[in-house]
Amino acid sequence: MNKSGYHIAVVGATGAVGVEILRVLERRGFPVADLKLLASSRSAGKRLAFNGREYVVGELNSAAFADIDYAFFSAGATRSRQFVDAAIQAGAVVVDNSSAFRMRADVPLVVPEVNPRDLQDNKGLIANPNCCAAILAVAIWPLHVAFGIKRIVVSTYQSASGAGAQAMAELEEQVKAYADGQPITHKVFPHQIAFNLFSHNTKVMDNGYNEEENKLVEEIRKMFHAPALPIVPTCIRVPVLRAHSESVVIETERPVSVARAREILSHSAGVKLVDDAPNNHFPMPLEATGDLDVHVGRLRLADADSHSLALFISGDQLLKGAAWNAVQIAEELIKHR
Amino acid sequence: MNKSGYHIAVVGATGAVGVEILRVLERRGFPVADLKLLASSRSAGKRLAFNGREYVVGELNSAAFADIDYAFFSAGATRSRQFVDAAIQAGAVVVDNSSAFRMRADVPLVVPEVNPRDLQDNKGLIANPNCCAAILAVAIWPLHVAFGIKRIVVSTYQSASGAGAQAMAELEEQVKAYADGQPITHKVFPHQIAFNLFSHNTKVMDNGYNEEENKLVEEIRKMFHAPALPIVPTCIRVPVLRAHSESVVIETERPVSVARAREILSHSAGVKLVDDAPNNHFPMPLEATGDLDVHVGRLRLADADSHSLALFISGDQLLKGAAWNAVQIAEELIKHR
Repeated sequence: MNKSGYHIAVVGATGAVGVEILRVLERRGFPVADLKLLASSRSAGKRLAFNGREYVVGELNSAAFADIDYAFFSAGATRSRQFVDAAIQAGAVVVDNSSAFRMRADVPLVVPEVNPRDLQDNKGLIANPNCCAAILAVAIWPLHVAFGIKRIVVSTYQSASGAGAQAMAELEEQVKAYADGQPITHKVFPHQIAFNLFSHNTKVMDNGYNEEENKLVEEIRKMFHAPALPIVPTCIRVPVLRAHSESVVIETERPVSVARAREILSHSAGVKLVDDAPNNHFPMPLEATGDLDVHVGRLRLADADSHSLALFISGDQLLKGAAWNAVQIAEELIKHR
Repeated sequence: MNKSGYHIAVVGATGAVGVEILRVLERRGFPVADLKLLASSRSAGKRLAFNGREYVVGELNSAAFADIDYAFFSAGATRSRQFVDAAIQAGAVVVDNSSAFRMRADVPLVVPEVNPRDLQDNKGLIANPNCCAAILAVAIWPLHVAFGIKRIVVSTYQSASGAGAQAMAELEEQVKAYADGQPITHKVFPHQIAFNLFSHNTKVMDNGYNEEENKLVEEIRKMFHAPALPIVPTCIRVPVLRAHSESVVIETERPVSVARAREILSHSAGVKLVDDAPNNHFPMPLEATGDLDVHVGRLRLADADSHSLALFISGDQLLKGAAWNAVQIAEELIKHR
């Protein structure tokens, strides 16, 4: 440990999540003694500001991790598979935002509000969950502890930026083309996203669920230590720039009441209760954007027997769904060092 | 019966649904011998085209229904309560698109693909269901017949035009303001709709569900003659101009298979199967817009026990969710006259 702080590397620093990691490190006053920004050769040489100073982005290679304490990887699964080992060998603790290692038995997959103790078993590598899984986990974990969740049905409303900065730009370009009376074209997404929505743009697997949906199921099960928990996900892209929303119905082992669920969520870490029925004010992506907390509301009983609850959540998938959860993992590791 | 066709009145002819009723009557070659367009004094005097001829919109009053065979009401619940009786007394059969009479025991609520026989009991008034209920009913009724649905969880993705032409215009204006770098304002919806989404803009009732959600539940139960069927709805507005989508999970009495469900839906009336996993091509509002059929796809088992099925649907809420279902009811009545 460096007395004045830590040597930090951000891999994929110019990407949508990489940029957010820098903003979150600033916002949290994270003790950064030295900062190394890394990206592919295409982005090397770019300059990025951090705490009022400019940093030049260096090219990602295996020799880049000397003296690094914490390396945040957010450059896709291929880059992670290629370079994470080098970072660990160099002595860095890696928080990896890609899907590359999430389901590996020897790699903890962590949302600090849910399973912080899993961090203890880390071997220099911690996986950061899929954005929808992280947001959902924060919202329903306290309900799982209280009532014992035995089934989850979840439909998502996922923003364009979940597919990266270029996808967000595509939505903006399509909307501008529409406003100008020009034809709408698409290249990042398989379909027009402006004024449209579609099943998540990942491959549909043999079980009928797409990759995003399968990640959601597997990752919630792993974090909750509930390997057989039934989860029925439907992942949908919507023409929102940022923040994912999810319509959730949980079934519970023990009786649930709206009043008790509301009370629990009102003091749960990482949750902001937005549940103002008289003013029709509930979680919305526009309000969740930029917030570290996940907004949770529309609490109501799902069936008459008081063993199920419906809720609606919105969370910034670049923050709790990615950058903030990654930085939070590093904060947690430092706390228990 | 007039030999060359029927005397038709369209009440609320200048509204979003009224205009669509005219287009559907044209498109279906509906036997119109005479057409009377009616609206509030504010819209009276406007001219609308029908089958290449111009019609002047007259002012809605109780004396307007002499000699009318079929009156399509689409001017809101207040106008329907005020004028439907006069139309029936004048001898017209009324198809009412408002929510005013839908749950009255002596008024059939009909989707022709689902419960056409309920039309036989009509006393001159037939109610047209809520848009989400109509679209959902068409998609899942054939599955109910085959497998016996015992619970439905449904989350909606409802377009702006479901709230009327002004709401659709507001989404367009907000998108144009964004493209021009101008501030985004709202007045029709309680929140910004562009790049955002929110819980349906109807009042939340004591049971925790909003009016739209309660309609969906009550109307599906009435049409399916299943007064206690458990339905868990979440109704959400999304920044789509037209066509509603719904993410649906049904639980069934009898075992269900994806292959059998697909086969059934592939020849179900009013359904277009859009379920092309290799090309990631599933129901989308942009493709459902303008189509009389409801698009259904993403069929997959929800749980391992083969007693539940997940699906995704998109339907034009101005057509099957309103104008087309109303005209279809009239066609059905004529067929059995």
